[in-house]
Amino acid sequence: MQTTQAPDPYRDLEERVAAEPGAFRILTGDRPTGALHLGHYFGTLANRVRLQRAGVELFVLVADYQVLTDRDVAERMSEHVEGLVADYLAIGIDPSTATIFRHSAVPALNQLMLPFLSLVTVGELSRNPTVKDEIAASRQASVSGLMFTYPVHQAADILFCKSNLVPVGADQLPHLEVTRTIARRFNERYAPVFPVPDALLSAAPTLLGTDGRKMSKSRGNAIALSASPDETARLIRRAVTDADRHIEYAPDTRPEVSNLVLLAALCQGRDPREVAAEIGDGGAAALKRAVTESVNEFLRPIRARRAEVMADRGHLRRVLAEGNERATAIAGRTLDEVREAMAMAM
Amino acid sequence: MQTTQAPDPYRDLEERVAAEPGAFRILTGDRPTGALHLGHYFGTLANRVRLQRAGVELFVLVADYQVLTDRDVAERMSEHVEGLVADYLAIGIDPSTATIFRHSAVPALNQLMLPFLSLVTVGELSRNPTVKDEIAASRQASVSGLMFTYPVHQAADILFCKSNLVPVGADQLPHLEVTRTIARRFNERYAPVFPVPDALLSAAPTLLGTDGRKMSKSRGNAIALSASPDETARLIRRAVTDADRHIEYAPDTRPEVSNLVLLAALCQGRDPREVAAEIGDGGAAALKRAVTESVNEFLRPIRARRAEVMADRGHLRRVLAEGNERATAIAGRTLDEVREAMAMAM
Repeated sequence: MQTTQAPDPYRDLEERVAAEPGAFRILTGDRPTGALHLGHYFGTLANRVRLQRAGVELFVLVADYQVLTDRDVAERMSEHVEGLVADYLAIGIDPSTATIFRHSAVPALNQLMLPFLSLVTVGELSRNPTVKDEIAASRQASVSGLMFTYPVHQAADILFCKSNLVPVGADQLPHLEVTRTIARRFNERYAPVFPVPDALLSAAPTLLGTDGRKMSKSRGNAIALSASPDETARLIRRAVTDADRHIEYAPDTRPEVSNLVLLAALCQGRDPREVAAEIGDGGAAALKRAVTESVNEFLRPIRARRAEVMADRGHLRRVLAEGNERATAIAGRTLDEVREAMAMAM
Repeated sequence: MQTTQAPDPYRDLEERVAAEPGAFRILTGDRPTGALHLGHYFGTLANRVRLQRAGVELFVLVADYQVLTDRDVAERMSEHVEGLVADYLAIGIDPSTATIFRHSAVPALNQLMLPFLSLVTVGELSRNPTVKDEIAASRQASVSGLMFTYPVHQAADILFCKSNLVPVGADQLPHLEVTRTIARRFNERYAPVFPVPDALLSAAPTLLGTDGRKMSKSRGNAIALSASPDETARLIRRAVTDADRHIEYAPDTRPEVSNLVLLAALCQGRDPREVAAEIGDGGAAALKRAVTESVNEFLRPIRARRAEVMADRGHLRRVLAEGNERATAIAGRTLDEVREAMAMAM
């Protein structure tokens, strides 16, 4: 039987990249709020590395200011920033071609907020559904100005380095639309400085946490890339399953079991149905053994590289410092073009 | 008869400055939207120079990005920026002690927008009465993000150089309150980095335009500091008066005539009642002759200095470049303190 596969825009892009190397620049990034986990890996990190290997130039942003959008104080910031950079290097992001940098070290990027804020209305910012959701989910009684203007800051991130492709989940499309609007309006009003970036919609399967709910560090249901083999085994041992000893891949009817099957399959690079068939009637215990083994096997080289990176903090900091420098130089050039276009150069 | 005088906080400050030289730093500035005029001069510019001479350190901001809060495109920006700097130098702002700089040249100042935006809520920004008024007066159908966040940008202006006094009109007090709130919250949440600046309420008399309405370049009722003697004479000749040949200073009952009397008095540094008594029953023609003579006499040295400044653009640009450099160095140091306080330094 032929299985139906969702179209994979990443694979399309690889073909386009192969035909036109150097034509693509991608901006991605994360907030330094804690360890990256397998949900991040299979959701977005793996694709970044895949795109990098295909020849796309990566800009990877450590969004330190944005930590404050949904919390009052940025705790353990230095530790989280170092951890994030270590995760990036461990999974194979190559700092000789990729630029890893942080918001707070690139003033010229942040300066783009000013002209960009003039190009959107309060109405447009209020209508943004993602901002609305984040407002609803926030612990804050009232929304901060930083969260409200977040899509404009993201436009500065994407456009400062003139990225023309942005990998996003479907829920982030409205954010990217603000960036596209800002780029278009700037180009029309002043001069054609910015590309209007395209969305690169992720076709990655959604991995749930070990409790069957959305994977999230704060719920304790996520396997961090930096987790030890024992921590990993413990988390999977506690994973929610069901009483049926027959193991199958049926996400709609048996989400928890299917999620564990999917996790093992992703780690092994195989079809989840195949993995399930192998376990057959072994029950939850056999499933969990297989998952633990697959995850630990998969994470082994990542852990090894991460340990090396963390053993040489000097190198880690140099990587970030060099990325900051490269980003600052690019932001400076873009800002010069912006000032020129706006007749602000004297 | 003893005349009642409004209390003059500027004069109080001069006494405090004399007792504590170097304890005061003031941030003021203007948007480069056109020539400064006599309304600006007697409303705020004269006081800046007075404060500078008393020993206060001045920071004078050319708010080029803010031109976009109430218009789509910043027209003739370079010309307006040069004109503004020329006006500053002509009236006696001394670039050897004052720092004249522009927003767009100081990325680190603008970067303060990010942490500051996290310290105010959308509710607080919406309730700001000055923003509400500006929104009502604006030609724009909907308010731009730049206007909405303007008080936060102003907080960055005031706090980047740690000014502790801000000369404002009563209508701008709510704006300054946002700055004070941001400074207080930052200090409480992170570390005591910023002064909580005090308002220096202007006691200057309000000068109306030559048509008796609010003085404004766009209404053609304002005498620019750069106006020629002939242009000045022409504007005053067209000024609105009334049919009563007796000239007096009675702002409530005869606002147009009294405004011309006030203008002559301010230019002569005399009491308006004295000036009016001198003209007596000479009528509007005598009044206008006196006003024209006073204004032209008053503007003569300013025009002369302005012509010198405009004849040496190299010098003018160096003044601004040096101011930008000084402001950038200060903003960089403040940003370092901010990063340290927020544990963003790695």
